[in-house]
Amino acid sequence: MNIDLNSDLGESLGVWRMGDDAAMLDIVSSANVACGFHAGDPAGILRTLRQAKERGVAVGAHVAYRDLVGFGRRNMDVDSADLRADVIYQIGALKGLAAAAGTEVRYVKPHGALYNTIAHDERQARDVIAAIREIDPGLVLVALAGSPLIGWAEAEGLRVVAEAFADRAYTPQGTLVSRREPGAVLHDATDVAERMLRLANEGTVTAIDGSVVRIRADSVCVHGDSPGAVEMARRVRERLVQAGVTVRSFVSATTA
Amino acid sequence: MNIDLNSDLGESLGVWRMGDDAAMLDIVSSANVACGFHAGDPAGILRTLRQAKERGVAVGAHVAYRDLVGFGRRNMDVDSADLRADVIYQIGALKGLAAAAGTEVRYVKPHGALYNTIAHDERQARDVIAAIREIDPGLVLVALAGSPLIGWAEAEGLRVVAEAFADRAYTPQGTLVSRREPGAVLHDATDVAERMLRLANEGTVTAIDGSVVRIRADSVCVHGDSPGAVEMARRVRERLVQAGVTVRSFVSATTA
Amino acid sequence: MNIDLNSDLGESLGVWRMGDDAAMLDIVSSANVACGFHAGDPAGILRTLRQAKERGVAVGAHVAYRDLVGFGRRNMDVDSADLRADVIYQIGALKGLAAAAGTEVRYVKPHGALYNTIAHDERQARDVIAAIREIDPGLVLVALAGSPLIGWAEAEGLRVVAEAFADRAYTPQGTLVSRREPGAVLHDATDVAERMLRLANEGTVTAIDGSVVRIRADSVCVHGDSPGAVEMARRVRERLVQAGVTVRSFVSATTA
Amino acid sequence: MNIDLNSDLGESLGVWRMGDDAAMLDIVSSANVACGFHAGDPAGILRTLRQAKERGVAVGAHVAYRDLVGFGRRNMDVDSADLRADVIYQIGALKGLAAAAGTEVRYVKPHGALYNTIAHDERQARDVIAAIREIDPGLVLVALAGSPLIGWAEAEGLRVVAEAFADRAYTPQGTLVSRREPGAVLHDATDVAERMLRLANEGTVTAIDGSVVRIRADSVCVHGDSPGAVEMARRVRERLVQAGVTVRSFVSATTA
Repeated sequence: MNIDLNSDLGESLGVWRMGDDAAMLDIVSSANVACGFHAGDPAGILRTLRQAKERGVAVGAHVAYRDLVGFGRRNMDVDSADLRADVIYQIGALKGLAAAAGTEVRYVKPHGALYNTIAHDERQARDVIAAIREIDPGLVLVALAGSPLIGWAEAEGLRVVAEAFADRAYTPQGTLVSRREPGAVLHDATDVAERMLRLANEGTVTAIDGSVVRIRADSVCVHGDSPGAVEMARRVRERLVQAGVTVRSFVSATTA
Repeated sequence: MNIDLNSDLGESLGVWRMGDDAAMLDIVSSANVACGFHAGDPAGILRTLRQAKERGVAVGAHVAYRDLVGFGRRNMDVDSADLRADVIYQIGALKGLAAAAGTEVRYVKPHGALYNTIAHDERQARDVIAAIREIDPGLVLVALAGSPLIGWAEAEGLRVVAEAFADRAYTPQGTLVSRREPGAVLHDATDVAERMLRLANEGTVTAIDGSVVRIRADSVCVHGDSPGAVEMARRVRERLVQAGVTVRSFVSATTA
Repeated sequence: MNIDLNSDLGESLGVWRMGDDAAMLDIVSSANVACGFHAGDPAGILRTLRQAKERGVAVGAHVAYRDLVGFGRRNMDVDSADLRADVIYQIGALKGLAAAAGTEVRYVKPHGALYNTIAHDERQARDVIAAIREIDPGLVLVALAGSPLIGWAEAEGLRVVAEAFADRAYTPQGTLVSRREPGAVLHDATDVAERMLRLANEGTVTAIDGSVVRIRADSVCVHGDSPGAVEMARRVRERLVQAGVTVRSFVSATTA
Repeated sequence: MNIDLNSDLGESLGVWRMGDDAAMLDIVSSANVACGFHAGDPAGILRTLRQAKERGVAVGAHVAYRDLVGFGRRNMDVDSADLRADVIYQIGALKGLAAAAGTEVRYVKPHGALYNTIAHDERQARDVIAAIREIDPGLVLVALAGSPLIGWAEAEGLRVVAEAFADRAYTPQGTLVSRREPGAVLHDATDVAERMLRLANEGTVTAIDGSVVRIRADSVCVHGDSPGAVEMARRVRERLVQAGVTVRSFVSATTA
């Protein structure tokens, strides 16, 4: 039994700090590192990459729309030529910094609005898939569990890892409850840890209506943008380890 | 007898066009391609890289200070952590796009204010040298002929190519006449072509005072930012070829 | 008989030039001046404002989404707090530069994707209307002829000027033929000039199917982003003047 | 007896928060509000302006070089045309947002590298002075106590307010001890409060060598970028008020 824990890191920008990357790198097995389009300046990204390298945490490119003020959370209708090149540019930049840090970019996890859009929008999904294949077809794509993106990417030959969200409620259909609905975000660390243990062991979660739903997920996203979030992530990890689940990256034999 | 001709390309930005990259790529053997900090958006950079690939033109990273409005021409006192990471980020981004275009980044030529600063400022020079070594020590550095940068970089193990400027006057000491002085910029294409032929054949140019000065330069920078500049570059190439000088990149046996 | 001719100006960015503002300012009576979000750097904007002042051309704020690389042409789902503040910020910045140039901002014409979106999207339309009212309720809003935006803005007390496009074909319903349809963009300067004369005199245009359609428009947008566009704009103006129509701004008695 | 307390506010950027503007606005009489070039997005700036309005705190434009990643702390050799227009643009944008918040921009305090540069560099100083005069000659300039900038600005007809820094040590000549020297920054809130009381009452501070030096300052800068900084600012205010000094803005009769 093993599972990957991933988190969004490298999201500081110059003097503006976000999250506690060092603390989270002691918890997760995969670091989704910002590439400068929604967050992250090169020197800060490099610091995070060096910390990931020291701890043996796998590195992924957290590619995004070019939107610092909106933190990559605003939908943008970027055309194919731009989207493909933007994704390649970001992955390339992170590969360069990773090389300087003595590590490697092993996967790609799109961020924010791009993540949500390509889960369902085939045109933009195919642009991101093509971009990954053009720069490095060995990169794994992390995608929303249950989304059509998974099939599109696998059909193009990419390895895909499906992802669940530790602190989010699920519908009986196995999709995320919209953040606009009550109960969409979970706050009880103990409850969240138990849910993720069950997901790792049985591949199921209790949906918002009490039914049990099957989720195929090899990676679980935990957040680190507040002290409470870091504590919840730590609890998830501890519960998994205590129950004999190995927390490790999906890209190598490295045990974090 | 052979020499390299290089030019600054990929400097469009979204709807804003600059220069005629296709025309220049028929003239030069090396393309200094913008990396997005002083100019260049990813899709436009990728177009230029594909054109360079088609013509067998060698690609270099034209790294710069982060300053779109000032086109990287304004001095900035960027600290070492930022400057090193900024240079790595840009080279990495261009490497990614070059891979997608089926080509490779072979050298680094800093742009504008960064180029001028590191020719003489040891701290920033060492930051750029360290950045290149951290991402890829096989990259060649293109540096101002006669500048102390050449020695600093060679002492760190980098291969350096010294560069002359086709349309600039030189002092009797072999340095560039400041643009603020009269006669600093040359406008007669025939004269410029003859000067570059002599530089290629004899390693000398006539200085602004009429004396003859020795310049060690394996690459000559030509500009393409106006129809007149493209025509001058073409004349330089034709004169060299007519006289039996081979125009080719310093990084491979490729004859352009 | 009089009508306003407006054009998008101040769209250069640092070294990147766009259009021939001086030429267009001799043709139009209203200058939609970029505010730095989709185009325009402060020094370039100020140059355009000074030229507008010299020629007595009325100045409007060409506000946009924050998207330089996409030139403000990409849809973005900016939330209300951001959109309102972004519009106020841009108008304020242009007011400051206009004061320095000895002129005044008299109207607001949203640009690109924002223009198209608020023509029909009530939420974003109301944000732009609120922004204008908060900074200066005396500003006129230029809106797409026939769009619901006109009613929304008038109901909030704004003065609205409806706009037609000289080089665009119209449907029998009086809406613009989509750029994706054949024949959407008109290229014959003589034909365009005649159409605009008829619009000024009779308030009608011949639609793409040959029918005659009524368009309420007090301002006509002409383009200046190519030598051909400038020539077409000049022809429109000359035809109007020759036929006794006065080309003048909708905001003052100034005759351009 | 009265004195002004000012602080740098509005320096958040999108999701990235900086400082506790609400807490500081209960302490200071003047708010130096970021204008978007070194920090601040329009919606965040507007929130800060509304809070300042509610508390009757005077608003100034905290203009800066265009450098988000470097937070405006890096020297840049911006030419006169750009610097003047950049300053006007920023003041104008803040004026627009201030109007929407029901308040007004009353003064200008340059930020970071621009502040330090114009204290001594006459060319850039004259550009900033000219910019202020062009947009609104009624704006007060806040300048480093003892700097030549004060004379240059007064000679051009600007009202100038000299500023001291609460948490900085002074040389026997009345200049700031460089941050690179030991003891340059003061950390004891009680000591700092006593120093500022003496400055308000007697116009003197104890220099780093123990001598007493005269400082002409009508405003004191306090920081709010950490909980300790907010506490120190509060102590300064309380000590002043307790001793009968009125904390109020230099621009109006408003008593904060």
